[in-house]
Amino acid sequence: MGNSFGRIFRITTFGESHGLGLGVIIDGCPAGLTMDEAFIREELQRRKPGQSKITTQRKEEDEFQILSGVFEGKTTGTPIGMVIMNTDQKSKDYSHISDKFRPSHADFTYFEKYGIRDYRGGGRSSARETAARVAAGAIAKLMLRNFGISVQAYVSQVGDIKLEKAYTLLDLSLTEENIVRCPDKEMAEKMIAFIDGVRKSKDTVGGIVSCVAKGVPAGLGEPVFDRLHAELGKAMLSINAVKGFEYGSGFEGVKMRGSEHNDAFYLEEGKVKTKTNHSGGIQGGISNGEDIYFNVAFKPVATIMQDQESVNEAGEPVTVSGKGRHDPCVVPRAVPIVEAMAALVLADHLLISRTNKLHV
Amino acid sequence: MGNSFGRIFRITTFGESHGLGLGVIIDGCPAGLTMDEAFIREELQRRKPGQSKITTQRKEEDEFQILSGVFEGKTTGTPIGMVIMNTDQKSKDYSHISDKFRPSHADFTYFEKYGIRDYRGGGRSSARETAARVAAGAIAKLMLRNFGISVQAYVSQVGDIKLEKAYTLLDLSLTEENIVRCPDKEMAEKMIAFIDGVRKSKDTVGGIVSCVAKGVPAGLGEPVFDRLHAELGKAMLSINAVKGFEYGSGFEGVKMRGSEHNDAFYLEEGKVKTKTNHSGGIQGGISNGEDIYFNVAFKPVATIMQDQESVNEAGEPVTVSGKGRHDPCVVPRAVPIVEAMAALVLADHLLISRTNKLHV
Amino acid sequence: MGNSFGRIFRITTFGESHGLGLGVIIDGCPAGLTMDEAFIREELQRRKPGQSKITTQRKEEDEFQILSGVFEGKTTGTPIGMVIMNTDQKSKDYSHISDKFRPSHADFTYFEKYGIRDYRGGGRSSARETAARVAAGAIAKLMLRNFGISVQAYVSQVGDIKLEKAYTLLDLSLTEENIVRCPDKEMAEKMIAFIDGVRKSKDTVGGIVSCVAKGVPAGLGEPVFDRLHAELGKAMLSINAVKGFEYGSGFEGVKMRGSEHNDAFYLEEGKVKTKTNHSGGIQGGISNGEDIYFNVAFKPVATIMQDQESVNEAGEPVTVSGKGRHDPCVVPRAVPIVEAMAALVLADHLLISRTNKLHV
Amino acid sequence: MGNSFGRIFRITTFGESHGLGLGVIIDGCPAGLTMDEAFIREELQRRKPGQSKITTQRKEEDEFQILSGVFEGKTTGTPIGMVIMNTDQKSKDYSHISDKFRPSHADFTYFEKYGIRDYRGGGRSSARETAARVAAGAIAKLMLRNFGISVQAYVSQVGDIKLEKAYTLLDLSLTEENIVRCPDKEMAEKMIAFIDGVRKSKDTVGGIVSCVAKGVPAGLGEPVFDRLHAELGKAMLSINAVKGFEYGSGFEGVKMRGSEHNDAFYLEEGKVKTKTNHSGGIQGGISNGEDIYFNVAFKPVATIMQDQESVNEAGEPVTVSGKGRHDPCVVPRAVPIVEAMAALVLADHLLISRTNKLHV
Repeated sequence: MGNSFGRIFRITTFGESHGLGLGVIIDGCPAGLTMDEAFIREELQRRKPGQSKITTQRKEEDEFQILSGVFEGKTTGTPIGMVIMNTDQKSKDYSHISDKFRPSHADFTYFEKYGIRDYRGGGRSSARETAARVAAGAIAKLMLRNFGISVQAYVSQVGDIKLEKAYTLLDLSLTEENIVRCPDKEMAEKMIAFIDGVRKSKDTVGGIVSCVAKGVPAGLGEPVFDRLHAELGKAMLSINAVKGFEYGSGFEGVKMRGSEHNDAFYLEEGKVKTKTNHSGGIQGGISNGEDIYFNVAFKPVATIMQDQESVNEAGEPVTVSGKGRHDPCVVPRAVPIVEAMAALVLADHLLISRTNKLHV
Repeated sequence: MGNSFGRIFRITTFGESHGLGLGVIIDGCPAGLTMDEAFIREELQRRKPGQSKITTQRKEEDEFQILSGVFEGKTTGTPIGMVIMNTDQKSKDYSHISDKFRPSHADFTYFEKYGIRDYRGGGRSSARETAARVAAGAIAKLMLRNFGISVQAYVSQVGDIKLEKAYTLLDLSLTEENIVRCPDKEMAEKMIAFIDGVRKSKDTVGGIVSCVAKGVPAGLGEPVFDRLHAELGKAMLSINAVKGFEYGSGFEGVKMRGSEHNDAFYLEEGKVKTKTNHSGGIQGGISNGEDIYFNVAFKPVATIMQDQESVNEAGEPVTVSGKGRHDPCVVPRAVPIVEAMAALVLADHLLISRTNKLHV
Repeated sequence: MGNSFGRIFRITTFGESHGLGLGVIIDGCPAGLTMDEAFIREELQRRKPGQSKITTQRKEEDEFQILSGVFEGKTTGTPIGMVIMNTDQKSKDYSHISDKFRPSHADFTYFEKYGIRDYRGGGRSSARETAARVAAGAIAKLMLRNFGISVQAYVSQVGDIKLEKAYTLLDLSLTEENIVRCPDKEMAEKMIAFIDGVRKSKDTVGGIVSCVAKGVPAGLGEPVFDRLHAELGKAMLSINAVKGFEYGSGFEGVKMRGSEHNDAFYLEEGKVKTKTNHSGGIQGGISNGEDIYFNVAFKPVATIMQDQESVNEAGEPVTVSGKGRHDPCVVPRAVPIVEAMAALVLADHLLISRTNKLHV
Repeated sequence: MGNSFGRIFRITTFGESHGLGLGVIIDGCPAGLTMDEAFIREELQRRKPGQSKITTQRKEEDEFQILSGVFEGKTTGTPIGMVIMNTDQKSKDYSHISDKFRPSHADFTYFEKYGIRDYRGGGRSSARETAARVAAGAIAKLMLRNFGISVQAYVSQVGDIKLEKAYTLLDLSLTEENIVRCPDKEMAEKMIAFIDGVRKSKDTVGGIVSCVAKGVPAGLGEPVFDRLHAELGKAMLSINAVKGFEYGSGFEGVKMRGSEHNDAFYLEEGKVKTKTNHSGGIQGGISNGEDIYFNVAFKPVATIMQDQESVNEAGEPVTVSGKGRHDPCVVPRAVPIVEAMAALVLADHLLISRTNKLHV
């Protein structure tokens, strides 16, 4: 269980790091959407390993195939099946940890849960699985474009190097201009140098990805449990290595007084707007038409190029040695994943919201 | 949509602040659980308004009735229907805001979403709805007890008054000894004084509720989307006024190196344990047998006893005046709600985990 | 589990025959629907015991209360909670079977499944539960009316007395004119006399309810698993005592050749119609705009006024004696239940169909 | 929507008749099940076109690949992704009907629902989709075997040639001995000759598949909506060309008196058994440990080798001519599909039933 996400625009994913392949079924994508395979490919490129010196040097080609649900360039309303075959499996790399529990990985918990585990590259717990999310998220983005909705994420913190500027003071079109995906050039350089240093010290470090959704109409989100930010939060927390989620004023907001936190309504050309946006575009769990923004905290990658104490399946103390090609910091590659998951939530709730009133 | 939570141990709630009543159906509670109505009553008392000088002085009796699913003191496996009638409705209190959108409430978004709204006390968006959650959560707690699992929450921050001690250094049995529900007596007094001051200034303030689950067996949580912390996160973010969620090392963890963040495995009396617990008891989305702990950020209550600018349904500028009886800070009463939602997630995943292996 | 039905217009029911009460939550009813409590009351009257000499003489008042989701006469889009309290419980009537398994009832299976059972009146397995369905179905009917959709059921067979006329040759407005709910007066009289004879012989008999939905637009139903007739079939088979479901040509259709079974398309005033309707208004699992019609087979009521051999919980042979007030034939009272379930399926799929295309 | 089935053991399918490929994800298959690919292949062979003179002569190789969820010959508890590539697409065959609505096919309804359709071979509405069901069902069967549960279907009627013997008087091991899959040799020969005659007359005919599940423990099925027979009914009605479902006494049962229909309980070696089995192994929606049996009615195949009147997308009268290679009667190939769907329902409910009691 647990491999589906969404209610109407619903994805189900499968695939291990070193199995034959991985993929996703999108059920509920509306008919009539123009497919843009080049765009999906671009999105996968953004997530792909080996894209720069601060990401893993592992190669994965991520060639996808759409097997169904698209006819003559348009979606037909039937399920879209997508497959990405694994070509660079190198299972032998993992024999040294086949019975060892790597610290802060999912080796131990999968073994406890299922009594069996595919130890190759973390199996299902590998972030390789997120390729399927990015492919599906690309289609969600294509759908959202038709309604003027965009989703943009960027790196706002690496270790304790933090971009203090709010997104409203940034030019998000610059995000892809550098390899760390921080739209502030100066900060980006600091982050890159910092990650590179961490990598050289055979260590890893965490970071924060921030995300902004613009053009979201008022009315998305289904209280009381499926509040829009609760769905976004679950989506983000379901991404590998995520430890926290906050939206709008977030954790800092707890220090504020109601009188400063409240977003006063006013009218702008007959439209209801808010003067501030501590609400992060969501009030009572429903979008209010303002920008939605949130932060996602990623822990340092668990695989480090150092020896670590651990135990094995037989209950013996062992040493786990770092091997292979891994990211020193996951946030640059996490940017498209965060966007994909946000797009999936918004596409789903956009469709659900059509059922809220007696007449559309 | 959106009023159900959980897959096996699944709740569905209904009810507005000032309707005839509210309630919950628990579908999937296993048969054979000894019902303890006194315990449910106690839990509801902890959430109840009017319990101290730092909570709203509004009275709600919260008398519940179990209409089904229990026979001769035990659950029968059939759905448990519970109802709490609203006795202190005072709808007239709300006529002054019947067509006005209160800042940072859900008035505007419900109106946009549904084209109609029950303005009395916030209608469905009122935190009154959480009474149903606490009642259901009490039954989840009763179930968890049978498996040695406990869930305890407490207030760890109010405004910028922050309890820096980790939960491992606290005596959580002291939480209920003071009205702010902070287990550190000295900090509790500071928090109480602070909230009282905020109240007198006709303002409100936010805070953080921390929560610890002990005794959770390894193996709970369903990757990839229904990771245990993603489910906990969604549960918490679905509570009124919540702006953020983090577990284990959380947002602070992003600053750490992998080498310090990783939790080394070791053996203690033949059992696999971790030396540290930055993972917060969850690895790869699955519980590992260590304590689960997390923080939940609450914004300042939106209702303040001051005049605020706003607009009304007709699109005219208006002034909203604070009236009625409201909490200056929501966190003391949020403690049992956080516990309830955590218990619901754990009960659900405990049952789901029985299906993970071919043989139980 | 298993007490919810529907995806968008979704009901969850609770309640035992002799508990304090039963009820239903409707989640996903769109906002803006004018509530008509009198109509709900009428529908419940049609299902009510004691309405004629050929139904059980047991009295149940079935007074319902809408606790939420309706404000100033209209639905608000929030969950509608409805409760029907049990007033005529007479639990003592059932002490004689408290540890005995009544033949062809659910006593044995509930005991095996849950290890405990509420033996009073069959507990959750009692058809009393269908009162909640009828109440919810009445609201679904109110919604469908706004879109010109009607659902009408009638009794077409009792024992081997079968109304051979197709529904197209009947005047369905006559259905409520007699106590057996058969729109053919002559057949109705035969059926009534027959049921009365069966009742006098302390026995029971089965029958068939037929149902027609008119005005259903083309496009409802979600292949491949949620085909419209599969959803209708599940809905009907979930009603107490149902043993079979067929739509369109049904079981008789297996004898036909494709050349006679196929429904030729033609044009009538620019609209695509079919000359015959063996498809029963559904092709490939999707409504085609023609009338939907189907049959539902009900077995003879299991409670008979005779002694029967059985065993008890202790595994001893016992005699079960018939007692109490029961229906000699369930179909007259099943008519509104069949309609209710059909209306729920159609309301749900009408809403779902709004998400099929990119633009509504 | 609508392409998933099951709650715990849950399948999601994709794929059109003439797209690149089709497939299925099984989410929730428990870990530790020994995979038997040869068995899956055998099952697919049973469904395959071109297997005899009374099935379509179309060739489909149905070579499947398991892409994930299996490691070293055992399931790992992670989702099982399976793909079957389409190799014999011959899309050109369908240009003659690219804008025509074939009578009693899904052409018109898909077009109305989605505004677009993949006309090649019926697209998603093609029975080719059932290959994915058979593959998934084979894995469900493998799981059920571990618990001593078997599912066997056979053809019991073709046109009006009906096998009157109850399944208890048949040797079901003979089912695969003839091409029509009827375990009574004499009847089988009649059916084969009959279908062959129908084929030569360029026509098609319907039939009935009967199915028996043995070894099902008492306690499966989730009232009130997810009654075991309601789930089986939905599963069967979701198969292409199915028009009806009945279990146990079925439609014939309506003619019986309660006194003859009721299944008396008795004790056999300390075990509760029923003397008769009109209940079809299910009472109150829950299995009682007796054999489960049911019938599934299939209409005549809609594609006939004759000219038929119809209309096209432009709303003009047209003639549809029969072309290609099609089944004169679908039931022989439907046998493994019926078994697959039954196995999926039973596997799902077997897992769900582990959550019914407080302790397993």
